[in-house]
Parts: sequence; structure tokens; C-alpha cells
Amino acid sequence: MRALKKRRIVSIAEFSIHPIGTGTSVSRYVKRALQAISKIEGLEYQVTPMVTILEAQDVCTILSAVEASHEAVRSMGAMRISSTLRIDKRLDKPRTMKDKTESVND
Amino acid sequence: MRALKKRRIVSIAEFSIHPIGTGTSVSRYVKRALQAISKIEGLEYQVTPMVTILEAQDVCTILSAVEASHEAVRSMGAMRISSTLRIDKRLDKPRTMKDKTESVND
Amino acid sequence: MRALKKRRIVSIAEFSIHPIGTGTSVSRYVKRALQAISKIEGLEYQVTPMVTILEAQDVCTILSAVEASHEAVRSMGAMRISSTLRIDKRLDKPRTMKDKTESVND
Amino acid sequence: MRALKKRRIVSIAEFSIHPIGTGTSVSRYVKRALQAISKIEGLEYQVTPMVTILEAQDVCTILSAVEASHEAVRSMGAMRISSTLRIDKRLDKPRTMKDKTESVND
Repeated sequence: MRALKKRRIVSIAEFSIHPIGTGTSVSRYVKRALQAISKIEGLEYQVTPMVTILEAQDVCTILSAVEASHEAVRSMGAMRISSTLRIDKRLDKPRTMKDKTESVND
Repeated sequence: MRALKKRRIVSIAEFSIHPIGTGTSVSRYVKRALQAISKIEGLEYQVTPMVTILEAQDVCTILSAVEASHEAVRSMGAMRISSTLRIDKRLDKPRTMKDKTESVND
Repeated sequence: MRALKKRRIVSIAEFSIHPIGTGTSVSRYVKRALQAISKIEGLEYQVTPMVTILEAQDVCTILSAVEASHEAVRSMGAMRISSTLRIDKRLDKPRTMKDKTESVND
Repeated sequence: MRALKKRRIVSIAEFSIHPIGTGTSVSRYVKRALQAISKIEGLEYQVTPMVTILEAQDVCTILSAVEASHEAVRSMGAMRISSTLRIDKRLDKPRTMKDKTESVND
């Protein structure tokens, strides 16, 4: 996990990816997608049991994580790939991933 | 956060809910939904920056969390409510929320 | 496709379901899920290339479609099942599925 | 609606976008996002009551629709924007949006 300390205007997203039809265990594909994500400049991420949380200054950087993940899973031979992405872009208030969790926990 | 220790056949899901049209800050609605979720018997949950992870033995218990959350947000006066749910049900292997994260981290 | 004519307060949702690990073609599982959905009282639905649109007076009826679909796919022997649901509940304005498409097309 | 006739290897996706905090009616924002989407080269789309179906040869073109939509909604003054995207990329079989619906209807 890499997470930014500084509050700033960011896009936060949740992302998941898996191949369909390669067996019920998909963790080695997810691992490879995470490796690709970890190389993207300006992108912070956090792994959770269902999704990977992505944080970047612009939507474009988040979308490049989606593209890199698809490319990573495809390069392992998957013939059908499903991914989901939900972006939450907020322009009125600087925040971090951590802020979002704290605002509902306190 | 409440999380089960024992590995068993479970449904794991990610869930999010927010009102549309009540302002850009929605954390008090999310908090109320989480209170409703916390009262459901047989449901474990974990809050993350974008989604709440739900874990239960059957899909039915997870769906009752969705219904309770909608009811909680509606009771606060929200006139339009959006929610997303993604269920991952696995029958071939006992596991916990924690297992899922570990399988991609090791 | 069954679609209601009368405008009323409804929950509209999008739903998709597929097994993971049974091959790249999943249409026979989707077909069986749709059969289960078609039997639910008070539920209207519309098939599209990526999701099935569900419409019902209450969230509860929509959730019963999710449960019936999981049960249908599980009964065919799938060992891992993924589903996504997004609910849009609007209380301030009666509408139908058709209204939603028209409001962005005119 | 623009839809391709020719079967080929494509990525099909479902996409939705809405501002949070601008009122319960969001159709004028969705309309503007669709205008932006309609200008993207190599992208076919179909509007449904909950999502817009996107079809393109590569994932990259689909992601450019997400970026253009965010930009369109942001330019209208929205301070918080939520979007969801689910991509279904299939490499083993040429198909169109229409094929997907037919395979579960026949």
C-alpha cells in the first residue's frame, strides 16, 4: 500500500479486474494487474478484499491504471476479461483516501 | 470493523450508497447506513475509502444489508438514492475477507 | 421484455451475473437467471447487451431478483459467481424505465 | 443510437455518470456527457434506462469516453461527480452488442 499524506483535490476510485473462464482462482491475474498499477506515476493505491482503491490528481491517471491492468491480464493469455471501475471525483474539497474512511468512522 | 477468524464458505461483497441531490458531502448518510448494517446478525463488514466490504454465509444476509441501508438513508429524507453492490460468491473454497487480500499480496 | 406503462414511484436497477471459471461463454447461465427473474411478481425487466434493467415498486423486489439469479446459477453447478447491482431509487417523481431514456434523448 | 453491423473482436462496456449535490434531476448532465461520447471516433454506443453501452475495438477508446464524460460534466460546474464503468473484453470470439442480447434471448 502506498498512500499520500497531503490533502489535495483528487479523484478516488475503486477498481477490480478478473478473467472469466480460467478457473475459479484468479489471484495470480490480480497480482499481475497490481504490479502494472504499481508502476504508474502519480497513482496511489490500496488493496482491499474486493477492490483496489486508486487515488490520483486526475481521472486520466486512474484510467491509465485500468488500461495497464487489462494489458497485464491479457498478456497472461486470458481470453475474456471483466473489470469494474467507480470514480468519485470531488472538486470542492481537498481530501485523501484516509479522510473518506475517517469521515464515516468518527 | 468486525471480521471473522474462521475460514468457511462465504459470500463476500462490496457495497456503497449515497443520496443524489443533498449536497456534495454525503458522509452523514453513509454513517447512518453503516449503523443499520452493524445491527444485522451474521454479517461482518469492513469500511474502506470507497466501499464497505460485506461478508456473510448466504447472499440473503448481504441483500438485507442493502435493504437496511436504503431504508436508513430514505428515513433521513433523501429523495434519490444510488447504491452499488458487487457480490463474489465462492463455493469451492472456504475463505475470509482477509484471505482475499493476502492471496494477491504474498 | 415486459415494461410498465404507468408512471409511479419506482426503484430502477441494473443487474448482471456470471459464473467465473466455467469457460468464456456464459450465456446459458444468464438465460437461466433471466428465467428466474421472469417469475418474480411485481418486477419488470429489460435485457440490454451488458445488463438487465429491473424495475419494481420497492427495493425488496429488486433484491429478490438478485437472490433468485444467484440460486439459478448455483443450481447449474457454478462454483464461483460474480454479480453487480446498481439501484437508483427516486422518491420525488413518478417515472418508468422509458422515461429515463427519453429524458436524455430529447 | 449507433450500432455496428460487422462482427469483430471488441470491448463492450456499460457506463454511467452523474453529479452528486446538484439536485435529484441529473438528465441535463447525462445529455452533455452523451454529446461528448458521440464525438469519439471508433466508438459505438446505445442508451438504456440505467447505463450507456459502449463498444470499441480497444479498451483505450472506451476509456476516452469516460474521460470526455467527466470533462463534460465538470465543465457544467458539478463539484462532485460519480461514474461507474464495467468492461467486458472478449478475445476469443468476434461479436457485437446485438449478439450479446440475442445469445440470452433465443
